[in-house]
Amino acid sequence: MIIIGERINSTKKSIAKAIIERNDGFLQEEVIKQVNAGATMLDANCGTLPAEEEPAALEWLVETIQCVTNLPLCIDSPNPGALARGLAVHRNGKPLINSISGETERFKQILPLVKQYNASVVALCMDDRGIPSNFEGSVEVAFELINKLVDNGIPVHDIYFDPLLRSVSTNGETVIETLKLMDIVSKQFPGIHITCGLSNVSHGLPERKHLNRAFLVLAMEHGMDAPIIDPCDSAVRALVFSTNALLYKDKFCLNYSKAFRQGLLLG
Amino acid sequence: MIIIGERINSTKKSIAKAIIERNDGFLQEEVIKQVNAGATMLDANCGTLPAEEEPAALEWLVETIQCVTNLPLCIDSPNPGALARGLAVHRNGKPLINSISGETERFKQILPLVKQYNASVVALCMDDRGIPSNFEGSVEVAFELINKLVDNGIPVHDIYFDPLLRSVSTNGETVIETLKLMDIVSKQFPGIHITCGLSNVSHGLPERKHLNRAFLVLAMEHGMDAPIIDPCDSAVRALVFSTNALLYKDKFCLNYSKAFRQGLLLG
Repeated sequence: MIIIGERINSTKKSIAKAIIERNDGFLQEEVIKQVNAGATMLDANCGTLPAEEEPAALEWLVETIQCVTNLPLCIDSPNPGALARGLAVHRNGKPLINSISGETERFKQILPLVKQYNASVVALCMDDRGIPSNFEGSVEVAFELINKLVDNGIPVHDIYFDPLLRSVSTNGETVIETLKLMDIVSKQFPGIHITCGLSNVSHGLPERKHLNRAFLVLAMEHGMDAPIIDPCDSAVRALVFSTNALLYKDKFCLNYSKAFRQGLLLG
Repeated sequence: MIIIGERINSTKKSIAKAIIERNDGFLQEEVIKQVNAGATMLDANCGTLPAEEEPAALEWLVETIQCVTNLPLCIDSPNPGALARGLAVHRNGKPLINSISGETERFKQILPLVKQYNASVVALCMDDRGIPSNFEGSVEVAFELINKLVDNGIPVHDIYFDPLLRSVSTNGETVIETLKLMDIVSKQFPGIHITCGLSNVSHGLPERKHLNRAFLVLAMEHGMDAPIIDPCDSAVRALVFSTNALLYKDKFCLNYSKAFRQGLLLG
């Protein structure tokens, strides 16, 4: 099970402020909290900074995080220049680039980085026409993108497919279709990882956390093995360990029991 | 969605005491709490009382509950004599008898009650050989029992199939198999209800509530539409409404939004 800690993301005001002020202590505390909470990889994002400041900031952020953890990072930016700076200083195992897509320009810009740094890559289910508006379109775009990555020499196990979940409030069938898409992709490309932010699913509805949690469990049953979550949310974390145990992905409940002994199932 | 409130069960010491002392106020508070928390049916069980006291106690319990709610009851006893007394005084809609099974003697005793009171019935997946020890055995016992009920004139929509979940700690594949069994039964018998207590799944493991919650979500995806839960557990209740919304069983998230307005999604 891969747990990608989402907390270091500049869409959060406190994180943006800390990055701008180069407040390494604050950010390193966020790192340590996530590591202690069971994260196995950490997202590093400063995408809300002005475009000209982001590359240097991402380089600094990656170095700052690596001072206090050996976990690999998910280097997260729409800006290939910023990704390159972050990747150049990444030193703990295989980095995960977040993200490539089927958009012609983006694919062309990101692929060389994946190869140069022998990275894994998040593959977003969209192309030049945008996010597919129906299930058949999603399957088509997913297959085309994954096949294109494989044809370009990226091993399937280095691909983290992201189905780009929509909100259940705007399309009631979106979750069922996303789960089906995950099934089809895992079956067609054995060894592929599936990732997904949870919170899109509940956009526009109240008390969103409950929907996000229920979706997490459903998605894990349908092959999502690399959720992007806040590992410090004890309810979410406990559901990850529990669902893994229930689905026999955690033989003899060893990880569940270990998480219990580490105090990760309290609350 | 059917939510069977489980709180009035004499395996809980406070409930047993209240039943023995005929403390109607205490029990009626339990009723009202569960009704306010969204239960659509209430279990009534005093199975831990001495066999000779149970029939009168169950009759009294049913009447006591009915003083403060119009919800139908799930009349719960291994004792046909006690069931008969409870059923005789049940007056709010269709009662649910908990339970019948494929055991010859039990089937013979309970079937006449189901017919006499035009009741629904929980059908436990076991027969004279006990609980099936493997998946194929479970399918066989399930089909035989349901077909026997139908052949005896019980409409499929009055049957609440209970797969008799085991603990994931003793058999790692039990959940996967139980989910598969639910799929097969729902497909073979359209209109059947599926019920299940959640807590068996986590027997022998620490911090059980997390496993129970994750199982709830998985089971709902596989057709469980009548969980037996504590509706006053706000996390469990919120997962029920959330999962229903995600799986498009709650069109336009109407029930989810209503639950929110009623304060049922807080916490």
